[in-house]
Amino acid sequence: MQARRKPVLAIDLGGTKIMTAIISHQGQIMAKDFSPTLAGEGSEAVIARLLSAIDHLLNLKNIAPSKLHAISIAAAGAIDLERGLVTSSPHLPDWHDVPLRDIVSTRYKVNTVLMNDANAAALGEHKFGAGKGVDNLILITVGTGIGGGIIINGRLYSGAGGGAGEVGHMTIDVNGPRCSCGNIGCWEMLVSGTAIAREAIARIRRGERSILTEMVGGKLEDITAEKVETAARGGDPLALEVISQAATYLGVGMVNLVNIFNPEMIIVGGGVAKMGELLLEPARQVVRERAFRLAAGAVHIVQAQLGDDGGVLGAAAFALSLTASKG
Amino acid sequence: MQARRKPVLAIDLGGTKIMTAIISHQGQIMAKDFSPTLAGEGSEAVIARLLSAIDHLLNLKNIAPSKLHAISIAAAGAIDLERGLVTSSPHLPDWHDVPLRDIVSTRYKVNTVLMNDANAAALGEHKFGAGKGVDNLILITVGTGIGGGIIINGRLYSGAGGGAGEVGHMTIDVNGPRCSCGNIGCWEMLVSGTAIAREAIARIRRGERSILTEMVGGKLEDITAEKVETAARGGDPLALEVISQAATYLGVGMVNLVNIFNPEMIIVGGGVAKMGELLLEPARQVVRERAFRLAAGAVHIVQAQLGDDGGVLGAAAFALSLTASKG
Repeated sequence: MQARRKPVLAIDLGGTKIMTAIISHQGQIMAKDFSPTLAGEGSEAVIARLLSAIDHLLNLKNIAPSKLHAISIAAAGAIDLERGLVTSSPHLPDWHDVPLRDIVSTRYKVNTVLMNDANAAALGEHKFGAGKGVDNLILITVGTGIGGGIIINGRLYSGAGGGAGEVGHMTIDVNGPRCSCGNIGCWEMLVSGTAIAREAIARIRRGERSILTEMVGGKLEDITAEKVETAARGGDPLALEVISQAATYLGVGMVNLVNIFNPEMIIVGGGVAKMGELLLEPARQVVRERAFRLAAGAVHIVQAQLGDDGGVLGAAAFALSLTASKG
Repeated sequence: MQARRKPVLAIDLGGTKIMTAIISHQGQIMAKDFSPTLAGEGSEAVIARLLSAIDHLLNLKNIAPSKLHAISIAAAGAIDLERGLVTSSPHLPDWHDVPLRDIVSTRYKVNTVLMNDANAAALGEHKFGAGKGVDNLILITVGTGIGGGIIINGRLYSGAGGGAGEVGHMTIDVNGPRCSCGNIGCWEMLVSGTAIAREAIARIRRGERSILTEMVGGKLEDITAEKVETAARGGDPLALEVISQAATYLGVGMVNLVNIFNPEMIIVGGGVAKMGELLLEPARQVVRERAFRLAAGAVHIVQAQLGDDGGVLGAAAFALSLTASKG
């Protein structure tokens, strides 16, 4: 099967950066490159930058589009899988029903796939990372928001239209504030990097003391989740409390997933997950305390292994699996 | 395959009653019978009553146990599918790791299956009811609590150990009270029949006026969800408000399921669901307002069709599918 041996050009389109990679049919990254997304410039500018990033990588590796098995795009947003649309995205504010799949396939005359980035990361970890050999797992990416991907019976579960896995947008605080997605008290409002920074800033504004104030020279708006982590590792009580609270909320949402899915594994990726055990161990504790005993005992809660490569690896695996099942 | 033509003896073991039925391999109920559960008498007494209910139905239809394809038990509780245990149950208070499957199979020398009752109902509706031909659906049973069952790619999804589908025990009110399951602010605490009665009683105790007070002759503890429904249909403002609030909370949990699963259908069964559109239409409205657009547009929210027969029909279908896949 000569066709299957062609590489995939995989793209991870995030709110901050665009990663492009050439990936062999065995899942090896043969080349990768980064461009800034500059989402604020609007969808047309971002698409132009995406296309030029593809051109650049093809030129760099001297590959003609016809030598690609497929182009596979993992994008941060709500995807209409069937029609190949980015229907909306919190990270790409002016994107509404953008036919990104067809824009790319028309230009390069190559089979093109468009999927959600956290779905791609779930498949990546399942095929090549922390979830290898684990047939029922949930991946969550905790960054500026919370994304999710669901593997059931060894396959990506995308739901009726490609929209499954939006676990960050389950209500866990029914009396909470409105989320940008339109729902109320979403999980990601209490746990994400944004939430951690917001909570630290709010506490300092209320008069609590923290090394963070000094770290940002009094410019509280410069406080990020990473800085809160640094302060916590230095023993700052406020930072420790903020992270402990986020970790508890992380656990609350995990209890929901454990009771609903009775999964073998929950994999935690994304920027905030780099905090590691500081975040994961208190979350595990909440799961042990609150979830159904059988399900709590069955689940392994672990950190993602592929880091930022999960998205492109999963996108490539998805494109390869689609054609494999056709053939 | 003569063996496949044998009927299944299916049992729905609930907190209030035990239903036994003989079901043909085509899903026809050839006989059914009821016994009271009397859960308060303890697990041994309930098991004795269950066994005598089986004996009674076999005698009634003059069927020897060896002429059964299987005995399949749907039980209201957390089930360890592999080991055939009722690990715990809110409706069977003293049941802890009761090896019900083996008790039955040893006595009758017949293949026996033990599963969760809402999982069974999901499979029943998928095979014979509202979900026929729908490959990705969630069933919820709203009664004294909320149970759930998940059909993915046309098959029951039971998770790593048979515990999947406990959607009634997802936290939707992170600051809410503790649920009997050990978790906090569970969905079922805000929506179930118990919750509806509790809310009506609390409002009347706080001094609000309602026809319900007269209906129960001042004995507020006699208020049930059914009575609240009757009062609401009679135009009682308090009853209408209580049901509208429960319907909103029903919708909040559905939004979570819609965002997580992007299902084709949510089927609502159980005693409280008999309220029908009084409960479902406001819940649908919440889904339309709060869930992701693509997923909200894809989901049909409908009432269960099989009523109380869903559990035994699904339990029979499950037993038949297990052997079919072996053969």
